[in-house]
Amino acid sequence: MSADKLIQKLIEMKNPTIAGLDPLAEYLPASMIKSDNLHDKAQAILAFNKALIDVLCDIVGAVKPQSAYYELLGWEGIRVLHETIIYAQNKGMYVVVDGKRNDIGSTAEAYAKAYFETFGADGLTVNGYLGTDGIKPFISAEKMIFALVKTSNKSSGDLQDLKLENGITVYEQMGQLVNNWGSEFIGKCGYSNVGAVIGATYPEQLAEMREKLPNTFFLVPGYGAQGAGAKDIKGAFTKGLGAVINSSRAIMCAYKQQNLPAEKFAEAARIEAVRMRDEINSVI
Amino acid sequence: MSADKLIQKLIEMKNPTIAGLDPLAEYLPASMIKSDNLHDKAQAILAFNKALIDVLCDIVGAVKPQSAYYELLGWEGIRVLHETIIYAQNKGMYVVVDGKRNDIGSTAEAYAKAYFETFGADGLTVNGYLGTDGIKPFISAEKMIFALVKTSNKSSGDLQDLKLENGITVYEQMGQLVNNWGSEFIGKCGYSNVGAVIGATYPEQLAEMREKLPNTFFLVPGYGAQGAGAKDIKGAFTKGLGAVINSSRAIMCAYKQQNLPAEKFAEAARIEAVRMRDEINSVI
Repeated sequence: MSADKLIQKLIEMKNPTIAGLDPLAEYLPASMIKSDNLHDKAQAILAFNKALIDVLCDIVGAVKPQSAYYELLGWEGIRVLHETIIYAQNKGMYVVVDGKRNDIGSTAEAYAKAYFETFGADGLTVNGYLGTDGIKPFISAEKMIFALVKTSNKSSGDLQDLKLENGITVYEQMGQLVNNWGSEFIGKCGYSNVGAVIGATYPEQLAEMREKLPNTFFLVPGYGAQGAGAKDIKGAFTKGLGAVINSSRAIMCAYKQQNLPAEKFAEAARIEAVRMRDEINSVI
Repeated sequence: MSADKLIQKLIEMKNPTIAGLDPLAEYLPASMIKSDNLHDKAQAILAFNKALIDVLCDIVGAVKPQSAYYELLGWEGIRVLHETIIYAQNKGMYVVVDGKRNDIGSTAEAYAKAYFETFGADGLTVNGYLGTDGIKPFISAEKMIFALVKTSNKSSGDLQDLKLENGITVYEQMGQLVNNWGSEFIGKCGYSNVGAVIGATYPEQLAEMREKLPNTFFLVPGYGAQGAGAKDIKGAFTKGLGAVINSSRAIMCAYKQQNLPAEKFAEAARIEAVRMRDEINSVI
């Protein structure tokens, strides 16, 4: 099972974190960008990603490129997304593309093939609003998906926190669907290939869902730049397992926090990744 | 307002339909595909799209490329998506990219820039599961979005049909959010720049939402290959306006229905587009 592959990687690194690769050209040292055209920006971002992967791959087991930041640069960006996936995997990393894809079955099948075959990613985030037949094409023994359950943003409650007639919230209902979708794909580690996205910015709900979904691995955004800290993610874990915590901007732009010049982004990212690892390990 | 631009185009063509461009290489005449590599497949799909646009642009006002089918071909596919958008717009067509994008605010901003600036599309489909702050970055006077409300697939009820404590369903709640999001961007035609996706496969819900959301323009999939007919979409209209009906496979693969060789795909597509236009116009 793909979930086992991810979990073994996290155990091997003694580090339950995933580094978000959501690069905007403005994060990069100006010297890296030859010109303002899409090709040069995309090339600079590829070099930025590779430098980050180089300094992180022996301490962080997984990366999560956010598709939007590559789509922003048109096909040149998508080429760089693909090259980033291959580069990270060649360095031994598990790669989850954050695309939150969703559609009817026939189109979901095209998305699954795109991300798992054409791009060769290990995992993909998806959105389950369309229900079962829009999710099934993404599920297999070889790959992992993470479906949105309770997202990290402020407005996530607009729909997700509403109570249903049956007494549970929309996000709890989505959690139950996620649990059902994964039930035939549970690995040796006890977690299924259908994970859930639950934001660290909602620590109570995170702990609540950990209890309700014992076979569901969590992808937890919101740590770092979005404001959540180590105490907020504690509830996502049982016996040191159960979740992978994402940090994107806090790692990519660690040089800002450390008052270093942008040219030192890679060294600063490593320092932040170690700090984050140790902080999280101290509470789980 | 972008909604006015779309509606004026539909009125000018006397045709409330949008042609889905969801091309799989297997739909194309084998003679168009030089080899099985991604580049040759993508080039063949570009030629296929251009031929369809050429025969449709004087009778159909809008096209909807489905992003998944381009992502399937990696960056070569995205290049072709971009070229297809430009080609269709140069022929006077309104272009809605069907990407069902969704994310937290900062990332939604990157998606909005990607589709509305980098690719220059006129509209984009989005998924509102994340709530208001994930949708706001997509909203402007110049562009249009269509948020999923009640989707056309069989499992759409898994979440969307559930009743909330307040007595309305999840899809009705989403409809109210869509209405609120669009309230400051209502054009001269009376419809806002925040439209809703509602499947023709659920005619009752379509008519019900038409009544509840008088300022929301509908993008209606499900006609044709998914099984819905003209009578099913009648309820989406008020005084001949209110919705644009999508057909993808029934137009792209019309040659199959007409027992023609694949080489005749363009002529067959035009015949089907005219038939569909007349059929829909006869009931609205």
